[in-house]
Parts: sequence; structure tokens; C-alpha cells
Amino acid sequence: MQEIRIGLVGAGTVGGGVVKLAHTSFETLCKKQGLPVRIAWIVDKDPGRFKLLPVGQAHCSGDPQDILNDASIQVVIELVGGTTHAKDLILAALKRKKHVITANKALLAEHGPEIFAEATRAGVSVYFEAAVGGGMPVIKTIREALAGNEIRSVTTIINGTCNYILTKMFNEGQPFETVLKKTQLKGYAEADPSLDVGGGDTGHKLAILASLISNGYVPYAAVSIEGITSIAKEDIAYARELGYTIKLLGIIKKEAGQGGIEVRVHPAMLNKHHILASVSGVYNAVLLEGDAVGQILLYGKGAGEMPTASSVISDVVDIARNIAAGQPIRVPMEHYTAEHVLTPKPIEEIRCRYYLRFTVIDRPGVLASIAGFLGAENISLASVMQKEVTAEKRVPVIILTHTAQEKNMRSALSRIETMDYVKSPTQVIRIED
Amino acid sequence: MQEIRIGLVGAGTVGGGVVKLAHTSFETLCKKQGLPVRIAWIVDKDPGRFKLLPVGQAHCSGDPQDILNDASIQVVIELVGGTTHAKDLILAALKRKKHVITANKALLAEHGPEIFAEATRAGVSVYFEAAVGGGMPVIKTIREALAGNEIRSVTTIINGTCNYILTKMFNEGQPFETVLKKTQLKGYAEADPSLDVGGGDTGHKLAILASLISNGYVPYAAVSIEGITSIAKEDIAYARELGYTIKLLGIIKKEAGQGGIEVRVHPAMLNKHHILASVSGVYNAVLLEGDAVGQILLYGKGAGEMPTASSVISDVVDIARNIAAGQPIRVPMEHYTAEHVLTPKPIEEIRCRYYLRFTVIDRPGVLASIAGFLGAENISLASVMQKEVTAEKRVPVIILTHTAQEKNMRSALSRIETMDYVKSPTQVIRIED
Repeated sequence: MQEIRIGLVGAGTVGGGVVKLAHTSFETLCKKQGLPVRIAWIVDKDPGRFKLLPVGQAHCSGDPQDILNDASIQVVIELVGGTTHAKDLILAALKRKKHVITANKALLAEHGPEIFAEATRAGVSVYFEAAVGGGMPVIKTIREALAGNEIRSVTTIINGTCNYILTKMFNEGQPFETVLKKTQLKGYAEADPSLDVGGGDTGHKLAILASLISNGYVPYAAVSIEGITSIAKEDIAYARELGYTIKLLGIIKKEAGQGGIEVRVHPAMLNKHHILASVSGVYNAVLLEGDAVGQILLYGKGAGEMPTASSVISDVVDIARNIAAGQPIRVPMEHYTAEHVLTPKPIEEIRCRYYLRFTVIDRPGVLASIAGFLGAENISLASVMQKEVTAEKRVPVIILTHTAQEKNMRSALSRIETMDYVKSPTQVIRIED
Repeated sequence: MQEIRIGLVGAGTVGGGVVKLAHTSFETLCKKQGLPVRIAWIVDKDPGRFKLLPVGQAHCSGDPQDILNDASIQVVIELVGGTTHAKDLILAALKRKKHVITANKALLAEHGPEIFAEATRAGVSVYFEAAVGGGMPVIKTIREALAGNEIRSVTTIINGTCNYILTKMFNEGQPFETVLKKTQLKGYAEADPSLDVGGGDTGHKLAILASLISNGYVPYAAVSIEGITSIAKEDIAYARELGYTIKLLGIIKKEAGQGGIEVRVHPAMLNKHHILASVSGVYNAVLLEGDAVGQILLYGKGAGEMPTASSVISDVVDIARNIAAGQPIRVPMEHYTAEHVLTPKPIEEIRCRYYLRFTVIDRPGVLASIAGFLGAENISLASVMQKEVTAEKRVPVIILTHTAQEKNMRSALSRIETMDYVKSPTQVIRIED
């Protein structure tokens, strides 16, 4: 079989990992699997990076055009990130009938239809295992292993930065800002952490997963997203006291057949016995529920140089096998298009249990008033916890509700918040059972 | 594309699940993935089974020859079980250039080389996702998703019956025999449970996984196997007291490059914080460690009608895609042969920590004597727990050791057992950290 030549654009953390892993694994792939793959070009703006990597015989360049112009390159790996240059590069590669491998979740979540349509036109594939869940084979499991299932729900912890911060807050009782700074010092959070802690990164990944399980396209802009910046150390402490933990979850729930789909990112309280409650630190987990298979959990490192490179190499192997077979597109993506846009249910329509933390003044009748407003919206209380009065004569009242509709909850809270006994905005955290 | 016709042999629990799942999923596969698959024959000795299933237009028969003789059948699904008729059927199907899907772990573990050699000769594939881990995509993850990794270790809970029994013993404090009977009444254990509780079923699955990660063939007969029948309720109670749980593990450890491999099945104590310690009841889990990806865990139902059927259908989809591509063998199995037999390390050479429960008479100097014999073999103690004297003046002495070699442990125990103060055989359980 003829050598399959690959062009890699972006030799940063993940790209560097790919070069290293190619160096140690491609010889074995050739010998044991009959797949002669080779990185022929490595492109990066910073030529200093080439010296730190086992680039071997690869041409090194600062210009992606070198790869686009080399007709012998059959596969382009895009590890540049962002949604501008990366998009141009990928579209240009596809137009030249080169297969593409990318880890770019933002690009696929925001511009996936354009990219997959171009790939279909050109008769080549776009693989993206590394875009969601780092080294975990989430995409392959959904697209291939569970092909006989209708996937009913996906519950995920897929942002390592947020999970690390929340785990630290839980274990050490410190406030968000303090833990964030420490996390930045350790290199687990970016200088501008907003995409992680704001929930956007989880939203990008969730939009991709929602599109895959629904055979349509769920645009990133349609995902309901709340981050973790509002989680107070008090919430963590009360969660612990009540037998819960708090995680940033990405949640997809799909009704059978052509029913609605929920796609939402928000902090959630999980009972400490929930299988996702023990996913700590930088670890990620994806809990899939299929109509035939039941619940399946994937757990592993959701980011990092070598785990993510492992997924890129798995895509290389798949594309190489496709090329060997003369089957350029093995798993079609024809529903991930602008013609198949799916609009998730508005967040107001979801139903769940709630944790509410009111900050009120300590006077008779306050609890009865709050309970009255909730009751008027058909929200019943599962448990109530009132704490000692603090120095400022403010008292926290913690309420866990039974299942209620978000719309009703918002309506009740908007009334309660107008009352003079409420001294700070009320904290609301959804409970996932 | 021409219809891909499938013959199914064995319409019992899993086979029935396959018929049901084909009924609900094949239309979607055809419409959305362009894969026109159809079950054309269903064979079972018991014609009563056909009436309970949505067999549709399929021919029903009691004779597998009907499938073998039908030249239009490209894929045979073998769900008969056992290593005699199933083997003949599979070899005959392969000789006729029909692809084979099987869930038969015993057959692949004991006669895999013969089967894969025949498949290679005939130029067709044998797929077996359902043979290990029910609905979890263990085989696909190892063969495809982690293709760029060298897999260093596999630690598994892959027998639902044993895990259910041990979980019940742990939660309810009852002895093995009592729990086994209850488990049989619930239908989670066979009338003859020996293959499950004796560790043989785990051994079959482990032999397959060891062969896959080592690119060789680890024969079932070479796997070191101990079952759970000797686990006493006292061991469970002491484990709990010490912060451990007891699980039947299948363990593979592989040294880098051409180094040795350990392949062993035995009950093991796991720290309660170990990720596998919380895998309860009929759930299974497979913890893989790759040199690039680090640790990845798969968790799900390891048995049952629909989860196992889900894996069979995933194999159908893979083979259908291969046929569509004109690529009959996508992932070669050329190292799973009699020429590549790998002999695991003898169990005497492994190193681990140990839990020891001695039953001795309560007299001065006994503990010193035991410690002396252990020390003479270079085994140092991590902790000692001596309990109150029982009615028969026998006292249990529980020792946790630091890491030691199995050979030394056996040597020390053989000496200790000759002493007159030892009143019952000593219980030895390995600790996995």
C-alpha cells in the first residue's frame, strides 16, 4: 500500500503530542496493521517549536499553504484552534479533497454544517474524536459502538478546569476567586478563563454531542449555558451537608422518536452516590443512556497533551483504513447541516428539582411567605434548612424542592425577590437525580 | 447498495435481543447510514422461540445448514455458545466466505487461533464485541480508539454474577452459599454457577483482552484463575473494617516493549476509594491504561439481553460498512495465532500486597512466630489486627503486608501452616492498589 502522507498545522501542546506519539506509534501501525502513515509536513508560526519535537524527516514550515499546495498530502490535521484561520484552512483542505482531522470544538459547534457540507461535496471525511473528551472515545462510541441504539440522554462532566475548581472548592472550602487564581498558577486554567468557567467550552462540546445523537444540527447558540462563577463557598458547604456535590454538567435529554431535546450547561447538585459525583479534579466523564444498552460511562482525562494526541492518532488510523479500503467516507455526517437545524426546548420548559438559597432577615412569617409564593406556582418543598442568624442579622434559608417546571420557579422567584425581607439575590442550583 | 443478508443462529436471550433490536434499528440504519441490512434466517432448535420474536420476513429453521447453504448470506451471527457445535458452525461459515459475529468468549479464548486463521485464509472478518463486557465497547476501544497507544494494564470487573454476589455479601453480611442461592433465584446465576463463581468466565474474557493488547495469543489455559467460593463473610467484614472492598478482578499487566505479561483472575481487596470499588451489582467495568491516554474507564451492564444485543448490532454495522467499502478485513487479527502464543508470567512471580487471615490458638508467641516466618521471606507487615478469642478458643489474626513476591508468600505460608497453633487453613487475598 502507498504511504499516506499527513500535514499537521499547529505544533503547540496537542500538536506536539501528536508529533511525539506519531514518532513512537507509526512504525508499529505500519508493521502490525499494514498502515504506512507518515507526518510529511509540520506547520507552526513559531519555528522554535520544531526543535523541541522529534520531527524526523518531516518538512517544517510557517505557512499552511505548503501543505495545501502539496498534492501528495491526503490528510490535514488542524490543531490551530479558533474559528477564523482554522475554518479557512479546513475549508481549503477539503476543497482540495484532503481529509481533515480536528480537535476544534468551537469551530464544529458554530460552523459544523459549512464544514461537513464541504466534506460531503468533496467526498472526504472530517474526523474529530479529540474535540470532545480528550482521550476518551466519546465520538466513536456514539457514532459506531452505539449505532443500534437510540441515545436518550447524555450527562457529562467535560471541562477539566471547572471540575478541578469545583473539586478544590469542595475539598478545601475556599471561594471561587481564590481557587481560580491557584488553578491558573498550576496551569489548569487559562489567563482568560471565561470560556471554561463561563460554560462556553462545555457548550461547544455539548452542541456537537447533541447533533450526533439527534442526527441533526444543534447550533452552539441554541445551547442554554450557565457557568460556575456564581457558585459560592456557602453553596458548596450546604451541598456537602445535604449529601450532595456540585458539578458543572452538560446535559442532553431526548424524547423518543421526533420528540423535543434539552441541551443545557449549568452547575448542578448531584447526590454523592451519583456515579458522576466521584469524578474529581481534571478527570472527565460522559454518561450515555441508550434504549438498548442502558447506561454506559466513559471516564478519563478530558484534556492534556498525550490523551488528546491519542484521539488524534485514532482518527489517523481510521482515515488510513478508509483510504486503504477506497472508502473515503465511512460514517456519513449528512444530517449535521443547516437544513437539519434542531431547536432545543427553551430552558423555561425543563423540569427538575431545585436547591434554593435565600438570604433574608430573621423575622416571623418569612418562611411562610416564601413557601406561599412557591406553593402558588405548584412547587412543593422537599426539605428546608434555616441557619443561625449571621452578624448582619441576615439568615440563610436553604430549600430543596420536589420536581418543578423552570418557568414556574422563575415566576415564583421573581415575586419573592420583590419582598423587603430578601436581602441578597437568591441562589438557584438545579438538582440532577 | 445491495442488501446485506444475515443469518442468526441461536434465538435465546441474546439472540432474541438481536432480533428485537434489528426490528427497531435496521430501518434507521438503512435510511440514515445507507446500510441496507436484513436478518434473512433465524435458526434455533426450539421453534417455540420464533413466535415470541418480531421475526418479520425472516426464514425460521431448526437447521444451521440452511444458513450455510444460502449463498446470499454474507454474515453469520453465532449465539449458540459452547465450544463444539459453535466452533463447527463458525469454521463452516468462514470456509464459505461468510463474515462471522460471535459473543462466544470461551470459543475465542480456547480456539481463537484456529478461527482467526480460517478467517484470514477466507478473507473475511470475525467480530466479537459482545464476547467481553456486554454492551460496553471494550473491543472497539482497544482495537481502534487506542490504536496509537501501548496498553500497559487492564483491570476489570467483567463477571456480573460474581460482582452481584460479592456486592450482596458486602451489603448484607451473609455467607457465600446463602447469597449464591438467592442470586440463582433472582436469575442472576446459572443452575450450575461454577464457570462464573470459579472465575472461568472472567478468565475467558481476560484471555481475549490479553491477546488483543499484546498482539499475540494468550491461551485460556495459561491464565491464572481463582474464583470467589473461598471468600468468607469474615473476610468481607474485615475488608470493610479496614476500608476495603473485595471484588473478583481480571488483571493484565504488561511490561513495556517485549517484556513479560501478567494475566490473572482472582478476588482482590480494593481500597474503598479505588475507582473500581464502587462498581456494584451486575455492573461491569474495564479500566485501561495506555502510555499516551493514561487511564480510561468503561462502565456499563456487562450482560443481559439488550446490552449484549447492542454490541452484536454494532458489529453488524461495522461489517456492513466493510462490505460497502469492499474491505472485508478492516482490523487484522493476524497475531491471534498459534504461532504467536504468549506465556504469561507464573503467578509465583507476581508482586503485590496481601491480606492474610490466620486462625490460630490464643497463646503467647504465636504472632511473633508468624511475623518471624514472614520476615524470613522478606515480607514486612503493614498492619496487624487481632480479634477477641472465639468460643472455640480460636483467634483470627489479620495481617496486611507490604509488597511481596507471591513465591515468598507461598513459602512462608507453607511453613506457618505446619505449626500446631494454626487451626484452619489461612486465607490469602491479594490487594490491588
